[in-house]
Amino acid sequence: MTTAWSHFEAAAREIRALESIDGLAGWDQETFMPANGAEARATQRAALKGVIHEKLTHDRFGELLERAAAVDGLDTRQLAMIRAVRRDREREIRLPLRLVTEIAEEQGRAVEAWKIARRESRFSLFLPHLKRLIALRCEEADARGHSGERYDPLLDGSEPGMTTARLRPIFARLRDGLVPLVEELTSRPPPRTDFLSRDVWDTDVQYAYSIDLIRGIGFNLEAGRLDRNDGANAIFSALHEAGHGLYEQGLPVDGSPLSNAPSMGIHESQSRLWENFIGRSRPFWSHWFPQLKARFPEPLADVSLDEWLGAINAVERSLIRVDADEVTYNLHVLARFELELAFIRGDLKAKDLPGAWNEKYEKFVGIRPPDDRQGVLQDIHWAGGDFGYFPTYSIGNMYAAALMQAAQRDLPKLWDDVAAGNPRALLDWLRAKVHTHGRAKDAEQIVIEATGEGLTEKHLLSYLRAKYAV
Amino acid sequence: MTTAWSHFEAAAREIRALESIDGLAGWDQETFMPANGAEARATQRAALKGVIHEKLTHDRFGELLERAAAVDGLDTRQLAMIRAVRRDREREIRLPLRLVTEIAEEQGRAVEAWKIARRESRFSLFLPHLKRLIALRCEEADARGHSGERYDPLLDGSEPGMTTARLRPIFARLRDGLVPLVEELTSRPPPRTDFLSRDVWDTDVQYAYSIDLIRGIGFNLEAGRLDRNDGANAIFSALHEAGHGLYEQGLPVDGSPLSNAPSMGIHESQSRLWENFIGRSRPFWSHWFPQLKARFPEPLADVSLDEWLGAINAVERSLIRVDADEVTYNLHVLARFELELAFIRGDLKAKDLPGAWNEKYEKFVGIRPPDDRQGVLQDIHWAGGDFGYFPTYSIGNMYAAALMQAAQRDLPKLWDDVAAGNPRALLDWLRAKVHTHGRAKDAEQIVIEATGEGLTEKHLLSYLRAKYAV
Repeated sequence: MTTAWSHFEAAAREIRALESIDGLAGWDQETFMPANGAEARATQRAALKGVIHEKLTHDRFGELLERAAAVDGLDTRQLAMIRAVRRDREREIRLPLRLVTEIAEEQGRAVEAWKIARRESRFSLFLPHLKRLIALRCEEADARGHSGERYDPLLDGSEPGMTTARLRPIFARLRDGLVPLVEELTSRPPPRTDFLSRDVWDTDVQYAYSIDLIRGIGFNLEAGRLDRNDGANAIFSALHEAGHGLYEQGLPVDGSPLSNAPSMGIHESQSRLWENFIGRSRPFWSHWFPQLKARFPEPLADVSLDEWLGAINAVERSLIRVDADEVTYNLHVLARFELELAFIRGDLKAKDLPGAWNEKYEKFVGIRPPDDRQGVLQDIHWAGGDFGYFPTYSIGNMYAAALMQAAQRDLPKLWDDVAAGNPRALLDWLRAKVHTHGRAKDAEQIVIEATGEGLTEKHLLSYLRAKYAV
Repeated sequence: MTTAWSHFEAAAREIRALESIDGLAGWDQETFMPANGAEARATQRAALKGVIHEKLTHDRFGELLERAAAVDGLDTRQLAMIRAVRRDREREIRLPLRLVTEIAEEQGRAVEAWKIARRESRFSLFLPHLKRLIALRCEEADARGHSGERYDPLLDGSEPGMTTARLRPIFARLRDGLVPLVEELTSRPPPRTDFLSRDVWDTDVQYAYSIDLIRGIGFNLEAGRLDRNDGANAIFSALHEAGHGLYEQGLPVDGSPLSNAPSMGIHESQSRLWENFIGRSRPFWSHWFPQLKARFPEPLADVSLDEWLGAINAVERSLIRVDADEVTYNLHVLARFELELAFIRGDLKAKDLPGAWNEKYEKFVGIRPPDDRQGVLQDIHWAGGDFGYFPTYSIGNMYAAALMQAAQRDLPKLWDDVAAGNPRALLDWLRAKVHTHGRAKDAEQIVIEATGEGLTEKHLLSYLRAKYAV
């Protein structure tokens, strides 16, 4: 290892370490932090983001980077590191420090305003902050640079390499496939779901059961944690978060610039894969349902495996994205994508957003929110200035479908393993094909190498059609 | 506000924000972080401490500080800010960056080794790390500077302004007062305590009750949180941590360099005051015991208020500091102080520490640990390189006693309020006399202004003698 390389790598690791502290501060903010901590946290994160910006854009770091890049005989991993860091630096160097800290501070304030606005269902309390965030992030997009599509640099921030032009036709075909599917499925007689809302789902028992479940899919509890949550739904939250956790546990642990995810979409593919493709499947519950009944004799006394599967896969037109089933879920995302694209392009004014939201829901999901709390104010993302983030949820679903398709091809006994309560081979496959790369390759490149093709809606649609027998 | 001042203040606030993120990372590390996160967290914190060091010691920051200090007509608060920041900078500037990050990294590794060593009760696994930490922190002490007493700069790191020479006679008198007190109290027939260990203390009920309790003493749950904990003892942990929390909630919230505690001792005084002086008092439980019985009809069915008070104030010779009663507690601390003073002075070799520990316990507490797990390996502090921290626990107890003494003088109805379940006047008094100052004054100066005198053991001893009628 040359001196030039080791100096560069040490500096890059330092930046990566600071980024991961910001990750901790953000995670705490969304989980444990008491409400009144918001302003102080915004100041803290603005300071930290400022430091990261300074380090990344510093001339000295640029020199270290270029000297390391010029070293002879770098291996694939080192070249990937140069590429990843150069990309981060080039993105960041275009932004004035002032803008970085202003955005971070405004995010903190906006989230607080949004919390109150949502509680009182009063969009007007949130509007000035939303306007300001849109203005700031448009300024950021222009500073980062684009060829006419301002949304692109924002999308690229969450899903590096993805563009609006590529995404729109895929999303359009996805929507065209989903709308009739929802039409068909919601016209069937609804399954029995009464037992899910019985108030006898003891939190402690549910927690203990969820621990068993996530351990069962391979989650390492020495390297991750599960927090408490209420209700039957908590089981699926646990599987979802464990999916994210399995991915994090499989990433390179070397603290290098490659030790994180190449995109939010690939991250989400891992959570949705375990939550839905595995966690709402018949083979999975053929193993786990008897244990569930043993843990919850009361609420499940009169419930059969078929009824349980029917309930956890019930499809309905609903208002809240995070409660949506896996068929309608993407329509919630597609609505948000079109709305944020419109306001970033300047085609939709922030003040007109609630009305536009309601129309879009009527058109996409087939249901109209009665108030803004259950409409435009339901998600934290826009309050956090996260424009260009929502699409990664559907990208994640499409990647998950493609990966499952390929995994079934490569692992003929996959479903037998799942039904035996031991999906280790699938986890190993995901580790090898996805997790282990970290950021050494672009997200789509990882998917191409694992499945043979890039982002497409077709596996997701055919999976849903097959599962729901449409 | 002049430009010189506002530039300085902005830079100082940035540093303060970064320090408080490190506080978050440290809190998470000790509470929620899964074990495998230790190495990554050590790297993260080392990077962050490195950044703080760079900022604080940067020439440019020194210029900003001196230009701000030269501004005409600064008010008291501004002068206090200059003093606090100058002190931080002067301490830090003597340390090479290499030493700062080396210590942070070694702390992370040492804590992990200590965890295993404690689990297996094998001091030898921890020994090489302890040696290394002692060497590094001695190097730090020498770099910071001292007049022959190497322990002083370490003590000063936790209790600014305090010296070994001032502390030793006070601690000696405290020990001389406590030893016969423990002798006398442990010769009395032991109170009934069987019900404390009954396994019917439901966690959820206990948690709900603790929430009531801490709300009752004025803790703001919008600005703080309480986590779950098991057993009857959790009530006192809740009061202890709420005491720390009340202090934090009362500190200046302006994010300035004055917005934190002037010392760990003063911080601890607030937790111990609520946990022990109030929370183990008869007036407090005359209000809260009926509610406790209502919540826990099973374990407390046959328990009277007197029996409850007897149990929660039982004095016994025990091995574990954190489980110790308020009389013996300080003897645990004094033993640690003498040991760490000895190994920092070079009078005690790290390898001889377990034996020295056991002897000291026999002499001070009157009981000999059967193994190192219950002896020298019980606390995390030394593994975290925290030498000079333990004394602040007893300083806190002494400050708490002095503050309670003065509060009773200033608030004749204090105990009536406590017995009525409303100790708001005491909290307001603490806010005005202690919390609101933040770091604008030294800890001892705050206590002198509130009580009329500096650090002394006498109020703590007379409180204990009166409470236990000796």
